[in-house]
Amino acid sequence: MGAIAADLSRLPGDTQVLDGAGVRPYLTDATETRGVHGRADAVALPSSAEGVRDVVEWCYERSVPLVPRGGGSGYAAGAVPDGGVVLALERLRAQRSLDPLLWRAEVEAGMTTAEVRRRAREAGLWLPLDPGAAEQSQIGGNFATNAGGPHAFKYGVTRAWVTGVEAVLAPGELVDTGGFTRKDVASYDLTGLLCGSEGTLGVVTAVRLRLIPPPAAAIPVAAVYPDSAAGCAAILRVMGSGLVPATLEYLDEGALRAARFGYPGDLPAGAGFLVVAEADGDEQAARRLADDLREALAEDALAVAQPPAAELARWRDGVSLAVVAQLGGKVSEDVAVPVERLEEAIEATVAIGRRHDLPALSWGHAGDGNLHSTFLVATGDTGALERADAARAELFRLAVRLGGTISGEHGLGAVKDGPTYREVSLTRAHERIKRALDPEGLLNPGKKR
Amino acid sequence: MGAIAADLSRLPGDTQVLDGAGVRPYLTDATETRGVHGRADAVALPSSAEGVRDVVEWCYERSVPLVPRGGGSGYAAGAVPDGGVVLALERLRAQRSLDPLLWRAEVEAGMTTAEVRRRAREAGLWLPLDPGAAEQSQIGGNFATNAGGPHAFKYGVTRAWVTGVEAVLAPGELVDTGGFTRKDVASYDLTGLLCGSEGTLGVVTAVRLRLIPPPAAAIPVAAVYPDSAAGCAAILRVMGSGLVPATLEYLDEGALRAARFGYPGDLPAGAGFLVVAEADGDEQAARRLADDLREALAEDALAVAQPPAAELARWRDGVSLAVVAQLGGKVSEDVAVPVERLEEAIEATVAIGRRHDLPALSWGHAGDGNLHSTFLVATGDTGALERADAARAELFRLAVRLGGTISGEHGLGAVKDGPTYREVSLTRAHERIKRALDPEGLLNPGKKR
Repeated sequence: MGAIAADLSRLPGDTQVLDGAGVRPYLTDATETRGVHGRADAVALPSSAEGVRDVVEWCYERSVPLVPRGGGSGYAAGAVPDGGVVLALERLRAQRSLDPLLWRAEVEAGMTTAEVRRRAREAGLWLPLDPGAAEQSQIGGNFATNAGGPHAFKYGVTRAWVTGVEAVLAPGELVDTGGFTRKDVASYDLTGLLCGSEGTLGVVTAVRLRLIPPPAAAIPVAAVYPDSAAGCAAILRVMGSGLVPATLEYLDEGALRAARFGYPGDLPAGAGFLVVAEADGDEQAARRLADDLREALAEDALAVAQPPAAELARWRDGVSLAVVAQLGGKVSEDVAVPVERLEEAIEATVAIGRRHDLPALSWGHAGDGNLHSTFLVATGDTGALERADAARAELFRLAVRLGGTISGEHGLGAVKDGPTYREVSLTRAHERIKRALDPEGLLNPGKKR
Repeated sequence: MGAIAADLSRLPGDTQVLDGAGVRPYLTDATETRGVHGRADAVALPSSAEGVRDVVEWCYERSVPLVPRGGGSGYAAGAVPDGGVVLALERLRAQRSLDPLLWRAEVEAGMTTAEVRRRAREAGLWLPLDPGAAEQSQIGGNFATNAGGPHAFKYGVTRAWVTGVEAVLAPGELVDTGGFTRKDVASYDLTGLLCGSEGTLGVVTAVRLRLIPPPAAAIPVAAVYPDSAAGCAAILRVMGSGLVPATLEYLDEGALRAARFGYPGDLPAGAGFLVVAEADGDEQAARRLADDLREALAEDALAVAQPPAAELARWRDGVSLAVVAQLGGKVSEDVAVPVERLEEAIEATVAIGRRHDLPALSWGHAGDGNLHSTFLVATGDTGALERADAARAELFRLAVRLGGTISGEHGLGAVKDGPTYREVSLTRAHERIKRALDPEGLLNPGKKR
């Protein structure tokens, strides 16, 4: 056992420590398909918030870098270590409270998103967060990346559903940023600052969630168009008509081709763009909204249908895997632009791919202007990976030029260089905040720069 | 003209500068009724974001304190200066953009909340923010305090509706924290950090707002109970029944007595508590929800009715004034507690008042557990003001003991001492963030500590 692991093992409590070959499962995330792997001296697996605090304190006392890790489903290598200690939250998965009548729950950071949603459902409540890979991702990771998902269009991102967190701040203090009060302006918004900070400002150990009763009905409406121009016009028509669907999603031609098998509906010849909107509300309101959505989506559509909701959701969850299945690997980004620039961004994604000799496609959260712009790379094709890097840089410049952001929901992690695309003064403020809360720069170093 | 005013007047651009008697209207806010007045060397009134930057830079170069000011409708003396320069935003009131079909607008910080809402409405859209004093308060002030209001129960507080701001950071840099992209995790959440920071971390010059199409119908349902026990049980029954009203408000016995004239409905004998919930949605869904709310509210109610919405809203806006009218003055706080502790907090407010020989009452945002706990004081009664100070301290301790916060929506301003009621480590994080963004402590000094 190495010195770091041996010393960590002597911490009080029942923190488990891995080193050597044991650390391997903790060295990558969803960026594995593009060859990203890290290295770590040890993995610490505490089972309590106090255990997490002890590990942070131990690292801070010895100037050892620390990488907090949730489910490892991230797309930005945010949890990929470059030496030091991986602090895995997977053993903190207790439900500390769940109040069906008060619309709220407190769960530890390591509970999977799917499990949180299941428990809420069993209590007659709903957590509208639906990031991909919900069976793998953990609620603490959702918080650390301020994760979104299709329902963020109507219901907002993770931040909107967290009233407060328990977290460990440097150099090793366990704090509560807020409890179950739904409004709180007694302090700076530390909950919000930690949310999306990718473990670079603190380590979240438990989240207090606001839940709501689920809508009685949710009816998907899917419309197929010949191309992105017609599809994006339909998306703007929905918004312009004053309808408020719960989700407003799209797949471009390439994504649709990759994911066509298993689509629970008809894809007519010439299908080049799919829009899926969900109408929710009480039974009748949802039906009326679905009818209105059908009408708004109908113009220039090749087909409009109401596919079965459960099958559609299962299919939608598999889109990312179907895209990977094309060539074995992908470099997938998550730029977001103002919604009226969506068509431009979708078409530019394909054009950028073409310039770099890479098949390119996109799908994503149309209503939020959030694209999963993706360049396909064959397994082991290092030349393609290099070209994809250049393509990404071009894509990021485009997003910023269109008034958007280089990351709508995955974060920067280790793979995106934020400062290049930010105003200098904003970068300076970002760095000052980092120094204020992590003066020695030990919390997830090299991430979210 | 004093030296500060004279020097400020030489700034480029058309910034207006007041000193002497001219500064008087800028020395207090809604805390005037409890005798709070400040002092200032000068008032600067720039007409552009660049003008604001120049004033901030001028102050930072000379170590002159700076107090940003919106409509002056705050309840916490957050805009009350203690020397230095008042930077009033009232001349920045342009609508920079409004896109009816894209659900968004950019307005300058000095536009009144009511005006923003009016313009949205004219464009077929809705800004769900409805803090009190909307004709006086400015959208920049709403942002700086993360203002709430009745509709925050379903629709969230200010932060939920702002995608980004233009702001001036120390020592004088104009930055954009975000544009119109609805999701952005490329940086720390500077928008969220500035939101609710009461001008102590930067000065907001324009906000980019997310808007939504308004619900087609909004139907208030009002229920009268004999006492707070019956009323609070009804509030919990509404939540437990899985209904999601747009607002869920209450008035306790004292507030109801103060505001009874002009109430657009029947207040039967023995009325000791009023609950008002609003059902919104499309016409039919709102009607069905209103029926369900009536049913959930009916148990133990003395009366349940659907008062006319416009009249009820006008009456609701006047509650605060009606309360002041009782004795001429009031000390009104805005503690928030988990909703199941609401009854306890309502009753404790009255009991605390009694202990300090002050008439006490409360009303507020029941669903958010947010009370406007109020102690009535006669104009000029300094003894009562002193007793109110002791009563406030007791109230704050109570809120924290109940798992709540000393401020749900007004902020700390100059009149609340946050650190006394916060964990030490949280206070330390707060102070570090302040030092990081305002190293010389010149931005609204003495506020939000």
